[in-house]
Amino acid sequence: MAKTEKKDWRFNLHEIIYESNTPAGKAFDIGLLIAIFTSIIVVMLDSVQSIHQHYGILFNRVEWVFSALFTIEYILRLISIRKPLKYVFSLLGIIDLIALIPSYLSIFFVGAQSLLVFRALRLLRVFRIFKLGHFLTEINFLTQALKNSIRKISIFLLTVLTLTVILGSIMYLVEKRENGFSNIPESIYWAIVTITTVGYGDISPVTPMGKFVASIVMLTGYAIIAVPTGIITHDLALASRKTKHKFESCPSCGAEGHDHDALFCKYCGSSLYRS
Amino acid sequence: MAKTEKKDWRFNLHEIIYESNTPAGKAFDIGLLIAIFTSIIVVMLDSVQSIHQHYGILFNRVEWVFSALFTIEYILRLISIRKPLKYVFSLLGIIDLIALIPSYLSIFFVGAQSLLVFRALRLLRVFRIFKLGHFLTEINFLTQALKNSIRKISIFLLTVLTLTVILGSIMYLVEKRENGFSNIPESIYWAIVTITTVGYGDISPVTPMGKFVASIVMLTGYAIIAVPTGIITHDLALASRKTKHKFESCPSCGAEGHDHDALFCKYCGSSLYRS
Amino acid sequence: MAKTEKKDWRFNLHEIIYESNTPAGKAFDIGLLIAIFTSIIVVMLDSVQSIHQHYGILFNRVEWVFSALFTIEYILRLISIRKPLKYVFSLLGIIDLIALIPSYLSIFFVGAQSLLVFRALRLLRVFRIFKLGHFLTEINFLTQALKNSIRKISIFLLTVLTLTVILGSIMYLVEKRENGFSNIPESIYWAIVTITTVGYGDISPVTPMGKFVASIVMLTGYAIIAVPTGIITHDLALASRKTKHKFESCPSCGAEGHDHDALFCKYCGSSLYRS
Amino acid sequence: MAKTEKKDWRFNLHEIIYESNTPAGKAFDIGLLIAIFTSIIVVMLDSVQSIHQHYGILFNRVEWVFSALFTIEYILRLISIRKPLKYVFSLLGIIDLIALIPSYLSIFFVGAQSLLVFRALRLLRVFRIFKLGHFLTEINFLTQALKNSIRKISIFLLTVLTLTVILGSIMYLVEKRENGFSNIPESIYWAIVTITTVGYGDISPVTPMGKFVASIVMLTGYAIIAVPTGIITHDLALASRKTKHKFESCPSCGAEGHDHDALFCKYCGSSLYRS
Repeated sequence: MAKTEKKDWRFNLHEIIYESNTPAGKAFDIGLLIAIFTSIIVVMLDSVQSIHQHYGILFNRVEWVFSALFTIEYILRLISIRKPLKYVFSLLGIIDLIALIPSYLSIFFVGAQSLLVFRALRLLRVFRIFKLGHFLTEINFLTQALKNSIRKISIFLLTVLTLTVILGSIMYLVEKRENGFSNIPESIYWAIVTITTVGYGDISPVTPMGKFVASIVMLTGYAIIAVPTGIITHDLALASRKTKHKFESCPSCGAEGHDHDALFCKYCGSSLYRS
Repeated sequence: MAKTEKKDWRFNLHEIIYESNTPAGKAFDIGLLIAIFTSIIVVMLDSVQSIHQHYGILFNRVEWVFSALFTIEYILRLISIRKPLKYVFSLLGIIDLIALIPSYLSIFFVGAQSLLVFRALRLLRVFRIFKLGHFLTEINFLTQALKNSIRKISIFLLTVLTLTVILGSIMYLVEKRENGFSNIPESIYWAIVTITTVGYGDISPVTPMGKFVASIVMLTGYAIIAVPTGIITHDLALASRKTKHKFESCPSCGAEGHDHDALFCKYCGSSLYRS
Repeated sequence: MAKTEKKDWRFNLHEIIYESNTPAGKAFDIGLLIAIFTSIIVVMLDSVQSIHQHYGILFNRVEWVFSALFTIEYILRLISIRKPLKYVFSLLGIIDLIALIPSYLSIFFVGAQSLLVFRALRLLRVFRIFKLGHFLTEINFLTQALKNSIRKISIFLLTVLTLTVILGSIMYLVEKRENGFSNIPESIYWAIVTITTVGYGDISPVTPMGKFVASIVMLTGYAIIAVPTGIITHDLALASRKTKHKFESCPSCGAEGHDHDALFCKYCGSSLYRS
Repeated sequence: MAKTEKKDWRFNLHEIIYESNTPAGKAFDIGLLIAIFTSIIVVMLDSVQSIHQHYGILFNRVEWVFSALFTIEYILRLISIRKPLKYVFSLLGIIDLIALIPSYLSIFFVGAQSLLVFRALRLLRVFRIFKLGHFLTEINFLTQALKNSIRKISIFLLTVLTLTVILGSIMYLVEKRENGFSNIPESIYWAIVTITTVGYGDISPVTPMGKFVASIVMLTGYAIIAVPTGIITHDLALASRKTKHKFESCPSCGAEGHDHDALFCKYCGSSLYRS
């Protein structure tokens, strides 16, 4: 009896903390998000010198309250799950831990408090909002498309990185040290700034030859930005095709009982998909 | 009799001010747009110090003439509509009011005149031009696509904002206060400037580690700009599919009387849409 | 007899100058392009102070040679065409004239020679190269798509311009004159620099509120850049669908004699287009 | 006998160096890539002044070791291939040679060592990784799409270049020498920086008229960036259509023996492609 009761108690806690189907679960999720937002805004404001001078002590106390709350939340998460280690080593579990550690480090090490900014990582929980709302199909659709294109995007990024190393190295030869291209890594940084069309202007070519090479880098960046866009657009179209409605019975002859992977009606050859 | 006459008079005024089917309505719309343009150009020129010194008094008078005209227009709008409150609290109604208030505020408060720039909001009426022209299908098509993609775009913007908070916070730790990253909000501003590939260069990384993190931010921005583009392209294709011609009678067997949401001919299974 | 001979002579000249089917016509086109390129490079180099000091007199003579050549070409164009006025007032005719005038103006007015840069406009003739090569289908395909999307692109540009006027005006209020936003036109210029993600950094927000508004402008620009891309991609797809092969005889039943605008076989209902 | 043995020996070497099907071939490819990466990182670090002062002598020795290794590799490549000249004049062969020369040049010429950066070109071998992995379909898919769009992209780049020459020349007239637009090539460089939305800010317009022209350049760049994207997206879609599965036997009537280029079943008119 005591065992099942305990089981029930842990099961209920699990429902509240990990799921968001029940009203209590929804309330917990929303409360947690508000707590994360507030704690991050406190850390943000505390980093502004002028505000820190006035409210530093207040902010310090508020941060400790949040640290305590998040510690309790972390312990509850460990207790209420059947396999705590699975949570601890999951992405969200590691983030939750990273967000906790700085508070306790700051007791022993001066300056560790600035690591509180890692709480910003917990913002990733914001995507739970979509589970609460009705954004689930959109989320699935987008992640499906991104999953499909991850190989092509990584080929693209590797190409861009190779290009920046080559173009950055050439630029280091063309423009000399005195023009800001003080070493190859710096020149590669410049090439990335240029090819992505960010263009800070902290380093920019001075010699006519350098400006010529830079023009080529820019036009390259301008032309190849089209590649990831094309890839993702294409994969969105594929993802959309997969998620669109398939007919249960043939739209042409009405026959039923088709295989799960059937594309066409086996009796009349009509497509089982809406075109 | 007097009542119907008054109704007619209000009805005609309504036709002129709110609609643009009649010649008088078209003339009113074009006249109003010219007045808005001219008044905004006057406010613009008046903000240029050197021009203000020569024509400041003239501009002041012209602005009062426009204020009077727009006040009369606002009153006519209130009179000629059956439910004035609906107009007052509509988006265009609020904009019209915001554009009016600064003129009268400037009598009591010095400097309130600079709020005249809010007249620029009335520029949104420029989209009435399309009602006058034959751009209606294009407008409908674009707004349809944007409506479809608004959920996906907002998921995308939330992801970008979360990324900028996280990356900005990390950058605040990497680069120190003396390098321009003076606090977290400032660092987040830098992250937005960088991830959107704007790159003012007012704040830019100085340390090698900072440049490395900045490179990651830039490449991220360069790769994910593809996402909104993919989404909108995809939704334009969907919007186009919906607005394309559907056959009344089956193109294959000629049968008529299909349901409104029918995709295929119910007698022969052919598609009712142009492919 | 004399009349027909004259006709032949003018006809042959027309073939050489205006067309590029004959070997002579091709040679003329290529020669003209080389002359235009060379003359522009001379004008470019002449604008570089250090090169001008050494070769200024040589360049001056070369420019007069080109001016003479282009004048002869212009006269030949007038003679060899049946309706000279049609050429004079065509786009290419006006450009050819604008490219000629500065040379003769420079006799009477000192400094008019710098207007020689307008010769750059003649570069537009470079697109004749495609007529020479086999790029014609690609050119037709792209211009078709651009023609289709011109209305949507102009709606988009008008929206962006309205946004920049409104956002620039708001920024003028938020940031004050002392921060570089010295008047409304200047603020609108800043808004265009920001929303197009160019980001020179010559004017950038200083106050926290200004940076907040700027962030909104940047994210707006980052999100809406997707719209023209989506439009053009969509219209390329439509243009491609129109130019793809249509079957002469039905691919399903082999029937022939379909109407020019037929989409489906009139006997069996199959599509006449490759899907 | 000796001849066949020699053949075997050369054949085996060829398998190891040029192919990556065998375990030895894979090991060679991975080892080579690691060597290239390490040698480039050494050149990079050596270019950093502060690191060079400490480890300059060590780096010099390491670079000679790599030069020796790459020389041996180059000789082996020459020996093991049947037609050595074909390799020497292939793109990869020329790159391999360019990467070798600087080391030996530096014996005779001081400063030639800085040409070692050309080793970065060997990074292009990184794309062999994809041969090792399972990225082959993605690579084929992307290169197919890029091959299809190369004509359209070159038309686009020529248009952009023509635009920058014209707009740069006009800007040279509008803004004067004292505002940074010191000559026409410089102004064209500015136009490229602006139209590609890089926007360094090293040269930016000062006069109101110049800012107006610059705004047009920016909006042009913002609107036409859509064109390459549209082209590539479109050609990805075409490439995808070509690589998708085609049915061997008709999905509708089961008939076999269709021609290689058949689109529809020759007996029943159904499409032979998955839609």
